Amino acid sequence: MSEPAGKETYIVGVDLGGTKILAGLFDSSLECIGTAKVSTKAQRGLDTVLSRIERCVRDAVDEADLSLKQVRGVGIGAPGAVDFSSGTVLFAPNMDGWKDVPLKKELEKRLELPVFVENDGNISVLGVHVVELKGKPRHVIGIFVGTGIGGGLIMSGELFSGFNHTAGEIGHMIIDVNGPKCGCGSRGCFEAVASRTAIFQRIKEGIKDGEKTLLTEMLGSDLEDLRSGDLRKAIRRGDKFVGKVIEQVAEYIGIGVANLVNVLGPEVVVLGGGVMEALADEMTAVILKTAKEHAMPGTLKNVDILVSKLGDSAGITGAAVLARREAKEK
Amino acid sequence: MSEPAGKETYIVGVDLGGTKILAGLFDSSLECIGTAKVSTKAQRGLDTVLSRIERCVRDAVDEADLSLKQVRGVGIGAPGAVDFSSGTVLFAPNMDGWKDVPLKKELEKRLELPVFVENDGNISVLGVHVVELKGKPRHVIGIFVGTGIGGGLIMSGELFSGFNHTAGEIGHMIIDVNGPKCGCGSRGCFEAVASRTAIFQRIKEGIKDGEKTLLTEMLGSDLEDLRSGDLRKAIRRGDKFVGKVIEQVAEYIGIGVANLVNVLGPEVVVLGGGVMEALADEMTAVILKTAKEHAMPGTLKNVDILVSKLGDSAGITGAAVLARREAKEK
Repeated sequence: MSEPAGKETYIVGVDLGGTKILAGLFDSSLECIGTAKVSTKAQRGLDTVLSRIERCVRDAVDEADLSLKQVRGVGIGAPGAVDFSSGTVLFAPNMDGWKDVPLKKELEKRLELPVFVENDGNISVLGVHVVELKGKPRHVIGIFVGTGIGGGLIMSGELFSGFNHTAGEIGHMIIDVNGPKCGCGSRGCFEAVASRTAIFQRIKEGIKDGEKTLLTEMLGSDLEDLRSGDLRKAIRRGDKFVGKVIEQVAEYIGIGVANLVNVLGPEVVVLGGGVMEALADEMTAVILKTAKEHAMPGTLKNVDILVSKLGDSAGITGAAVLARREAKEK
Repeated sequence: MSEPAGKETYIVGVDLGGTKILAGLFDSSLECIGTAKVSTKAQRGLDTVLSRIERCVRDAVDEADLSLKQVRGVGIGAPGAVDFSSGTVLFAPNMDGWKDVPLKKELEKRLELPVFVENDGNISVLGVHVVELKGKPRHVIGIFVGTGIGGGLIMSGELFSGFNHTAGEIGHMIIDVNGPKCGCGSRGCFEAVASRTAIFQRIKEGIKDGEKTLLTEMLGSDLEDLRSGDLRKAIRRGDKFVGKVIEQVAEYIGIGVANLVNVLGPEVVVLGGGVMEALADEMTAVILKTAKEHAMPGTLKNVDILVSKLGDSAGITGAAVLARREAKEK
């Protein structure tokens, strides 16, 4: 769909993660025509992260040979609890402990554009529902496995965020009450046993305990630059230790799926995020088998459990859906 | 509200549980004017249970000096997965393993009245929402602790049952993946650690392991007639072992509350069921404290977590709400 020159019909979607920031420039039919990516560097402080988001947005626009003046608005998915109306991130343990960060206000100042902030799980399930599933299923649960685990709920056809706009915090559903400590202070949260952070921790502990893995050959003994893709490479080269860790994590994800199916009775469960994108082939069969073992009879009849084809783009896509809906044309 | 003689304006609500059957006769303003109670005896087989439900309904009507001819319809809450449209209980582990029981059809034959079957958790939260909360809160989670743990969801003001009409199976949300075995086959389900069945099992195991408790004085060493009320009596007489078991169970209930708050973001969480009714004074403070420790920041702002005043009548009340809505006047 081409647009008359000069009209601000383009939108930018941003996925702010604990590890990296993605931005995508979308046209009004939600086709992505330029992307950019930078690492988050949350530990350097808020100003650094804000500058990096700004740079990432400008890079994505530049990538598509456009200028910010042709952009109508920016949507952004942030990890943690978000107050949508003020655009404040209330609490984000994976962002070096952000509390009450006025993300909308700060970014509107820097970009001179309307900015809309949502929880990253909500944003991602919105993107999958509108673009990948064409808005058809009525009840969808999105499970996004990355640095943490984000979730989002579509119920009765609409994004559901509950009374305090916090629904979908599935990463802090406790599934192993005596399990490993989570960033939130509890033990055995879904993301404490099945996120990238949890996987890396298990692998590092295993190495300390004398487990042999190809990862130390590939990356050195401190595994400083370890990424999800390295795990896939190691498994494909026959690394039994990494294979076992990923199998256990897939079982935990299957249990998380079953819990949410039992509680919510969805029509579609969508799995996404960086870990799923890198390791879908290694994990999907185990996730499905475990989910079926633990879901109550009748709950999974005609229910699809699928890995999103949007992969890591679910976040930027949903952020663009949000911005297209919220940003009025000038 | 008085009704002209001869009009079938009365309704019966039935709560079918793994341990007992309750029936209540209600007038059209949902006031309960007669009740009856019998034990379930599920282990004697389906015919026995059907006869006992029938007897319980007739007793409740008789109790109010009325006849079945003055009744418009019967609502019934059944434990487990229910197909509402056919009135079939698909699966009920706490009913001696019921599978595909055509409860509506069988009871309509016996009672010659329209019968409507719903999941017991759904029914109970409907009763609390309509009668106790006057239909006001938009998002309510009901947690009903009895022989098992049933749940029900009110979302955006309506009973929410999801794609396969199975939503609210919170009793099979796994919270302790290495915990005790559940009737469903999984380990560490919410009801495997916090139902009456779980409490009794812990107490019996404790006694085997040499724990001292007043319960054996009160009931004999096999605890054959143990009820939730006996636990309250023992605690009030200073029984430290029973006090400790109930405190641990209250912590598990608190974790269940936190999980559901994190996932669903409700406005009100209602606790009910026989165990809550008997032990509310002993458990409520611990449940609230534990829920607050594990719910994410912001999720509990202005959220009420309360014990239903309907107590054990939530089920029959909700069943009456359902029957009043569904049964057309003749």
